Amino acid sequence: MSVYLHDIPLSQARARLREALQDADLWRVLGVESIPLDENALGRVTAEPIWAEISSPHYHASAMDGFAVRAIATNGAIPSSPVTLFIGPEAQYVDTGDPLPEWANAVIPIENVESLDEKNQIVDEIRKPKSIRIRAAVPPWSHVRPLGEDIVATQLVLPAGHALRPVDLGAIAASGHQTIRVARKPKVAILPTGTELVPIGSKLKAGDILEYNSLVLASQIKQMGGEPTRFPIIKDDFDLICEKVQEAAQTHDLILLNAGSSAGAEDFSSKVVEKLGTLLVHGVAVRPGHPVILGMVNGQSSIVPIIGVPGYPVSAALTVDIFVEALIAKWLGRPALELPIETATLTRKLVSPAGDDDYVRVAVGKVGDKLLAAPLSRGAGVITSLVQADGLALIPSGVQGMEAGESVKVHLYRSKAQIDKTIFCIGSHDLTLDLLAQFLAEHDRRLASANVGSQGGLVALRRGEAHLAGSHLLDPNDGSYNISYIRQYMPNMSVKVIALVGRDQGLMIKKGNPKGIKSLGDLSRPEVQFVNRQRGAGTRVLLDYHLDLMKLSFESIAGYASEEYTHLGVAAAVASDRADCGLGIAAAAQALDLDFVPLFQERYDLVIPNEHAQSKLLAPLFDLIMEPAFRNSVSKLTGYDVSVMGRIILED
Amino acid sequence: MSVYLHDIPLSQARARLREALQDADLWRVLGVESIPLDENALGRVTAEPIWAEISSPHYHASAMDGFAVRAIATNGAIPSSPVTLFIGPEAQYVDTGDPLPEWANAVIPIENVESLDEKNQIVDEIRKPKSIRIRAAVPPWSHVRPLGEDIVATQLVLPAGHALRPVDLGAIAASGHQTIRVARKPKVAILPTGTELVPIGSKLKAGDILEYNSLVLASQIKQMGGEPTRFPIIKDDFDLICEKVQEAAQTHDLILLNAGSSAGAEDFSSKVVEKLGTLLVHGVAVRPGHPVILGMVNGQSSIVPIIGVPGYPVSAALTVDIFVEALIAKWLGRPALELPIETATLTRKLVSPAGDDDYVRVAVGKVGDKLLAAPLSRGAGVITSLVQADGLALIPSGVQGMEAGESVKVHLYRSKAQIDKTIFCIGSHDLTLDLLAQFLAEHDRRLASANVGSQGGLVALRRGEAHLAGSHLLDPNDGSYNISYIRQYMPNMSVKVIALVGRDQGLMIKKGNPKGIKSLGDLSRPEVQFVNRQRGAGTRVLLDYHLDLMKLSFESIAGYASEEYTHLGVAAAVASDRADCGLGIAAAAQALDLDFVPLFQERYDLVIPNEHAQSKLLAPLFDLIMEPAFRNSVSKLTGYDVSVMGRIILED
Repeated sequence: MSVYLHDIPLSQARARLREALQDADLWRVLGVESIPLDENALGRVTAEPIWAEISSPHYHASAMDGFAVRAIATNGAIPSSPVTLFIGPEAQYVDTGDPLPEWANAVIPIENVESLDEKNQIVDEIRKPKSIRIRAAVPPWSHVRPLGEDIVATQLVLPAGHALRPVDLGAIAASGHQTIRVARKPKVAILPTGTELVPIGSKLKAGDILEYNSLVLASQIKQMGGEPTRFPIIKDDFDLICEKVQEAAQTHDLILLNAGSSAGAEDFSSKVVEKLGTLLVHGVAVRPGHPVILGMVNGQSSIVPIIGVPGYPVSAALTVDIFVEALIAKWLGRPALELPIETATLTRKLVSPAGDDDYVRVAVGKVGDKLLAAPLSRGAGVITSLVQADGLALIPSGVQGMEAGESVKVHLYRSKAQIDKTIFCIGSHDLTLDLLAQFLAEHDRRLASANVGSQGGLVALRRGEAHLAGSHLLDPNDGSYNISYIRQYMPNMSVKVIALVGRDQGLMIKKGNPKGIKSLGDLSRPEVQFVNRQRGAGTRVLLDYHLDLMKLSFESIAGYASEEYTHLGVAAAVASDRADCGLGIAAAAQALDLDFVPLFQERYDLVIPNEHAQSKLLAPLFDLIMEPAFRNSVSKLTGYDVSVMGRIILED
Repeated sequence: MSVYLHDIPLSQARARLREALQDADLWRVLGVESIPLDENALGRVTAEPIWAEISSPHYHASAMDGFAVRAIATNGAIPSSPVTLFIGPEAQYVDTGDPLPEWANAVIPIENVESLDEKNQIVDEIRKPKSIRIRAAVPPWSHVRPLGEDIVATQLVLPAGHALRPVDLGAIAASGHQTIRVARKPKVAILPTGTELVPIGSKLKAGDILEYNSLVLASQIKQMGGEPTRFPIIKDDFDLICEKVQEAAQTHDLILLNAGSSAGAEDFSSKVVEKLGTLLVHGVAVRPGHPVILGMVNGQSSIVPIIGVPGYPVSAALTVDIFVEALIAKWLGRPALELPIETATLTRKLVSPAGDDDYVRVAVGKVGDKLLAAPLSRGAGVITSLVQADGLALIPSGVQGMEAGESVKVHLYRSKAQIDKTIFCIGSHDLTLDLLAQFLAEHDRRLASANVGSQGGLVALRRGEAHLAGSHLLDPNDGSYNISYIRQYMPNMSVKVIALVGRDQGLMIKKGNPKGIKSLGDLSRPEVQFVNRQRGAGTRVLLDYHLDLMKLSFESIAGYASEEYTHLGVAAAVASDRADCGLGIAAAAQALDLDFVPLFQERYDLVIPNEHAQSKLLAPLFDLIMEPAFRNSVSKLTGYDVSVMGRIILED
């Protein structure tokens, strides 16, 4: 079965596309158009250098409100021996911007003259005295903006290939232009294919897939300076796809054929390209996105490049970044976008296929002096990982993986200033963290939270890899929370621990509780399928503690080994019948409309090393915890007790 | 005469505006609107947090093309002892994205199965075998995207106050939304006032000022996310301005009243604000831009803030950056823009009024390890200084000036990557540098050139403040160019000197040569007014050399002390009758339609320290000098000889 693609290296794939475009004389600015000089020109790219038609100012202009004079006539004026100049032949009032009279070569600002009437008395009339008296000489050309001070006719105002900013438009106007020659916008057709696709907003049944890739792709194209056209969804029908591709090729400069780029039974893209033109590349050694297709099909007057874009949303978006951005840039004549690259420390081990350039979405934060890159979900279907990503860490082909603590190059989506405002929270997940993120965003901070369980959070703090951690670790010896674990996992570190919430832990059970589950004891019934939290999670510790008290063995529980990483993950497992129940918080059960049997209340704390607790970065967080609006929002969630919120549990 | 403004500190001015807006309940998101989820939503700012309505995937989906199975049924399968599963009850073909059958909990990728017919023979038919044979067991949930893998219903997808990017739109669609609630765009009226103003594209007479501030301001507002309205030009008429301000206040959230904000005779803005509402501030201790007016006027339903924006284009643009950006940000609910700040070394002394926050436009380049800030023209009318600026150096109030070599904070307009591509050229000016800038822009380099004369360039190279310098310094002892000066000004430095052009130097004279000027000898005629180049310029050295040969004293030349800094500056002085003639190059004379009397040919070289000559940064420059297209463009300029171009003059 020919189900394998022959991946070629990224640089080679790009080179093939480029060569094909060069052969077709399409590796250049596509076309030039004249547009009016107005605010719609913003962001357009100059197609030609702009040379000044006129000078600015185009005459000698007064730079102040005052009197135009001959500089030589002011010679000798000193405080004790003023010089008087008669209005008319020797001095003339000028406003800022007025042209100098032919005979004048300097301006005396109004605040430096005494206005006199016919009797040489000082008058208060600024503009129409009979004469003026001055007590200081002025050199030639003082307070004058000479012709050409800003722009001299014929000089270069802007080079070609320049994306226009507001001040550029002013300079172009000042240099005598009324229109600008810019590169025309490349027209890009986006064709979503797939029988299983349904439009955004559809009522969904199992198997339906919301078609939003074309929205993301069109938005990317628009942001790059292109002009996208979204085609309606096309069914998986070879002839139909061929027809639509041919239609698109008549009026577009580039075709993005979304999905069907792999080698499965319904993956028609490569065959379509082969039929209508030339298949250049099928499969690139880059992740995500490797089943990419590059080709050329016949258009109206010339051939048209076509890119088979993989169907997974992350692969689709990154394929456009990797292959299309540079092409649009070339077609517009502007430099290709280059993300700033910084070196960061990886917070956990990454495995990567040795043959591929592997782009890993990472959250980036600065903790102390260290720039950290925390890998996010690597699933190609997880678009929220791109939403949360602060950058892409590149694991180059030839490298099979990287260890935690290693340095990695990160292509940054965000500015340094934004990253400096990021509060890095690693540890146990709680729904209040979502609310906290929302409130912090309103206070000029960004909360990036990675959920690695309570113990994982304390370990991350010890390693200096987070500003704070959420934790709810029960000490089975004395029923206290967190303190003994902090001493164990973070020895010799001064920390502040502040209570966030008290919350119910209990069993999330399928609506109606068909199996009649009422307590932990029911977990050992053979027909009850359980779903667990991962090792190190506070909820897992709680479970194990109570199982131990009850002398229930792990082995007796079906599904004990099946792990989810968040409360909502557990709830989703129950909601979708993957399990009958799981231990977690009430809010998660409510969110997915599950029954809930409360078993225990526990305290959820924020653990903050002192060096961060006193930082300006975290100040808004402490303010928020004391703010009634935030407290109120949390108390509206089921199963939360806000009476402990803000209580100092430990302050070293 | 009450011509002085009472400037208040910037922070105080901002606070007054903010307090007035708070009192009027306008210091908040102005309004919320629902818009469709399409590519026009790009850049809009979320007005509310976006919570997931549905999960994604909303069912357990196959992550691969393959066969859905019960994981338990694969137990025990090993290469030597395969397991056979019957299609139907035990295995079912699924494409990527298909829902799993109720009974299945894992997927085996198609490349890991053998498809069998009814006789247990391997067949090539992928999708419809009778049974499949596998040689490895699979754990539960392998190759499955479980319900909620990307998004779990009720989770926070995006916070409020978030400017939407392409991937955000995808995540919003995936979480079940079809519309988005965003902050409405603030409406900003821009009123240009001034009897002397004429629209862009007008035929100009002396005293006419092109009205392009409203274009720049409108473009800034648009870029910030507001909706600008440009009003037609309004004459300097108090009642008319009042009428238009009242009209604008009916339908806008903010009024920018351009010019008339100073305290001159025709500066009506403050009186208009006083008449129609409350004048909060007149005059802010910030440069450029100090005659700013802040006030509130009565609108339809509420009061409307009004800003009197100074008339000089640089002041106008910076006033909008300084006062309006933060306001638009607040009204949209997004964070205010913060330019990245870097510390750079100042290349020359700056004087600054002690009471003001002084923003100085600077070119920024990295030479070796040093980030340099070279101050550009400080004239508030020089919009090209904003076009060329890579950032703003802030000289805070309380500091009266800074010396060359001091560290200064620079607010950067450009990314580090762009600055890393900047070739810093300081020295003598030549028109070919404009062409070089244009060609370099096409080769992914930016040429920032500051004109300080030939000697100034060599001094800058010695100080490590430029990558290269243009120089045409004649040694009067042996008629050679540059070498002896390089040894004198750059002792112990290894340099490469490469010839750029041979060029004619001669007298630029008013068209028709009314005073019959034919040689340097004519400069001593009393009726001949000369305009000189600045001390240190190669052209000045050339002049002095020949005056010395001719035994002509400087004092005998009227205008010898009057200095311009570029060839075009000299040409403009002659074209505008400020002088009868000046020494310079043919191209400049031709540009401004002057007569030209060639006197000498000289060589114009590029001087490049070896450390830079070998850098990747400068490689495209050396390529260009050898490129026929560039050579051709230069040879089209009058008075240039390209035969020497690229000749190595010195290589240490």
